[in-house]
Amino acid sequence: MAVGEASFHFYPVQGVRLAAVAAGIRKPLEDNESSKTYDLVLIELAEDSKTVGVFTKNLFAAAPVKIAKTHLEQRDARYFLINSGNANAATGELGNQDALQCCEAMAEVSGVSCEEIIPFSTGVIGERLPVKKITASLRELFGGLDPSNWFLAAQGIMTTDTRPKISSRRFNVLGTTVTISGIAKGAGMIQPNMATMLAYITSDVMCKKELLQEILVKAVNCSFNRITVDSDTSTNDSCMLTATGKTAVDLENPEAQKVFISELIGLMQELAQGLIRDSEGATKFVTITVSGAPKRQVCLDVAYAIANSPLMKTAIFAGDANWGRIVMAIGKADTDIDVSKVDVYLGDVCLMLGGAKASTYREVDGADVMAQEEILIRVNLNSGDFSDTVWTSDLSHEYITINADYRT
Amino acid sequence: MAVGEASFHFYPVQGVRLAAVAAGIRKPLEDNESSKTYDLVLIELAEDSKTVGVFTKNLFAAAPVKIAKTHLEQRDARYFLINSGNANAATGELGNQDALQCCEAMAEVSGVSCEEIIPFSTGVIGERLPVKKITASLRELFGGLDPSNWFLAAQGIMTTDTRPKISSRRFNVLGTTVTISGIAKGAGMIQPNMATMLAYITSDVMCKKELLQEILVKAVNCSFNRITVDSDTSTNDSCMLTATGKTAVDLENPEAQKVFISELIGLMQELAQGLIRDSEGATKFVTITVSGAPKRQVCLDVAYAIANSPLMKTAIFAGDANWGRIVMAIGKADTDIDVSKVDVYLGDVCLMLGGAKASTYREVDGADVMAQEEILIRVNLNSGDFSDTVWTSDLSHEYITINADYRT
Repeated sequence: MAVGEASFHFYPVQGVRLAAVAAGIRKPLEDNESSKTYDLVLIELAEDSKTVGVFTKNLFAAAPVKIAKTHLEQRDARYFLINSGNANAATGELGNQDALQCCEAMAEVSGVSCEEIIPFSTGVIGERLPVKKITASLRELFGGLDPSNWFLAAQGIMTTDTRPKISSRRFNVLGTTVTISGIAKGAGMIQPNMATMLAYITSDVMCKKELLQEILVKAVNCSFNRITVDSDTSTNDSCMLTATGKTAVDLENPEAQKVFISELIGLMQELAQGLIRDSEGATKFVTITVSGAPKRQVCLDVAYAIANSPLMKTAIFAGDANWGRIVMAIGKADTDIDVSKVDVYLGDVCLMLGGAKASTYREVDGADVMAQEEILIRVNLNSGDFSDTVWTSDLSHEYITINADYRT
Repeated sequence: MAVGEASFHFYPVQGVRLAAVAAGIRKPLEDNESSKTYDLVLIELAEDSKTVGVFTKNLFAAAPVKIAKTHLEQRDARYFLINSGNANAATGELGNQDALQCCEAMAEVSGVSCEEIIPFSTGVIGERLPVKKITASLRELFGGLDPSNWFLAAQGIMTTDTRPKISSRRFNVLGTTVTISGIAKGAGMIQPNMATMLAYITSDVMCKKELLQEILVKAVNCSFNRITVDSDTSTNDSCMLTATGKTAVDLENPEAQKVFISELIGLMQELAQGLIRDSEGATKFVTITVSGAPKRQVCLDVAYAIANSPLMKTAIFAGDANWGRIVMAIGKADTDIDVSKVDVYLGDVCLMLGGAKASTYREVDGADVMAQEEILIRVNLNSGDFSDTVWTSDLSHEYITINADYRT
């Protein structure tokens, strides 16, 4: 019941190979137990690749998140080892040992050092990682590495996602063909606070770690840090960016950097929006743009107040142009705005001008917009030059059903 | 589908009379149009009564809220004129005129000045107040005033509430019998930020306005400002406290004040909890206590992070002891806590000790607690002496159904 069509097209990236197996960690989504549920993924990065990441700010960051950060500081990453079905979060010191044990086993199989393995987990919080199931599958996993396994890997990191998220671009930089390909997962517990659930983006450009980190933060702040499903921040959010350096394009070159960042942001927005389109129970894709603010934070406060309002989200689910709820949500934003200047548009329909109901507004026009699958809400505070955009979904019966049944 | 039994017992308060009529503002809840839907309420306060109020902090405060504040500053209140079915919010200058017109008509009928009429509205946001329906009913309303009409008045202020909320206490202060009686309404759009939807509390004590205001703020901060249904703050929240002065008990007396405040807080907590018990779609009543915090705000940040988490609320609806979601919610609280010290209890069952899963925890014990209608979640941060409590409900299919259908 995702909103809109998804594209699963991808280009392989020089220096990247992927594999996925069904290790029995995640229970099958369907009753049909015979269908294979991929739940263990390996991404191999060529030697000398540079990898950076941003991670959840949830105070209860999962064990693999802590290890990933440490390993990335110590060595350049060679393998991402990712399991779905179990988050290995709030598992204390035992969770730490479990994750390290998997890294060590993977290091042995692949012939690199333990610190070159970066672990990731996603799924149920608070349960022990099934280490034996994972380690027993590592040889098969390693043997399956292939540059064209992007779709399989995108499937293998899914939890409540109904479809894989893949985005891929190939473009010309100063005469050289550059590729960026990425996958992501996440459908609930999504208001990323640095990064979303899990995202892996790789390119064949050359880039030093410090610069790559800067670029990632910039791109995350226009993409994964601008989406919300339910205002809940996962313990496992991680977003990784790798430059394999297999092409001659160096991002130190300002022109190359400019083109690359623009393409990267486009790709990451596509992935981030893909999460929202496929978010738990989503029937609508909602874009909320707030302009005319004196500060960027004011844009975000107002946009998130709307995006996270259960009443607003339920009205959107119902296709009800209950614009009073937009007004309520703007008004509850904990920020300093002059309400007598506020204009609000639903699509092209003006709801509010200067803080009061627009005289031209007709309920039937609002209802027309709300009947669409893709809805744009624009708020102009008319008090400054800042503008920003947040993407979200509606709140449906299906969201309740999915999350009430998640562990049963 | 409210949680627990409600008591509708009340004592009349000397100096207070009430009335309610069906003015045709609110559509009947049932298809049975013949059943009377009370939607216009009048509360008369004896001359020399002192009345104070706290009001919503929503930036789009409704027209009646603005007028109520102004009138209370100008004169002592003699009548509360309250309609349900229409919030008269985000209606701009026209909304202001509509509310004033009703006050003027009421003043004429009752023979007092316009400033002695305090208007309140609750219901749909953004639609014009049906002034004619209201003014046409005022004589009948005025004629119906009676000291014993508390139940009728509590019914008349309801919107999506399934039952009236009344709380009443009679107690002895220094040899004199004192009465406090109050009514409240509200079932959704509830995270009061100064007061809840609507609450009217009256007593026959004597009290100066300044002191009465202090007492109200103190009591609100232990009751209506400690509840949340959906994190949404209404444009019309108002909580009024009146002292009619019909007994000889003066709250300037420290002993009298102490007893009164204790009883008032008890009564207001009962009303506030009554809102949660009857909140939209509620199947569970949840108490969240956070202790061991270095500051009160930290208690509230953590408690509201849990109380407003859609994933936590959905797990409670499902009776799922998905304690990982409690952990996630604590961790996303935007506050500085040492997670390695955190203990979490579900009822008497210890889930987490020192930031990791308690070794004694068994899923079946957690499930036993979650199966109850009333659930206590206790978090000890072990980092200070502050403690505070917030009350909330679960997030159910019924919440979605109610709010998707509200205007249709």
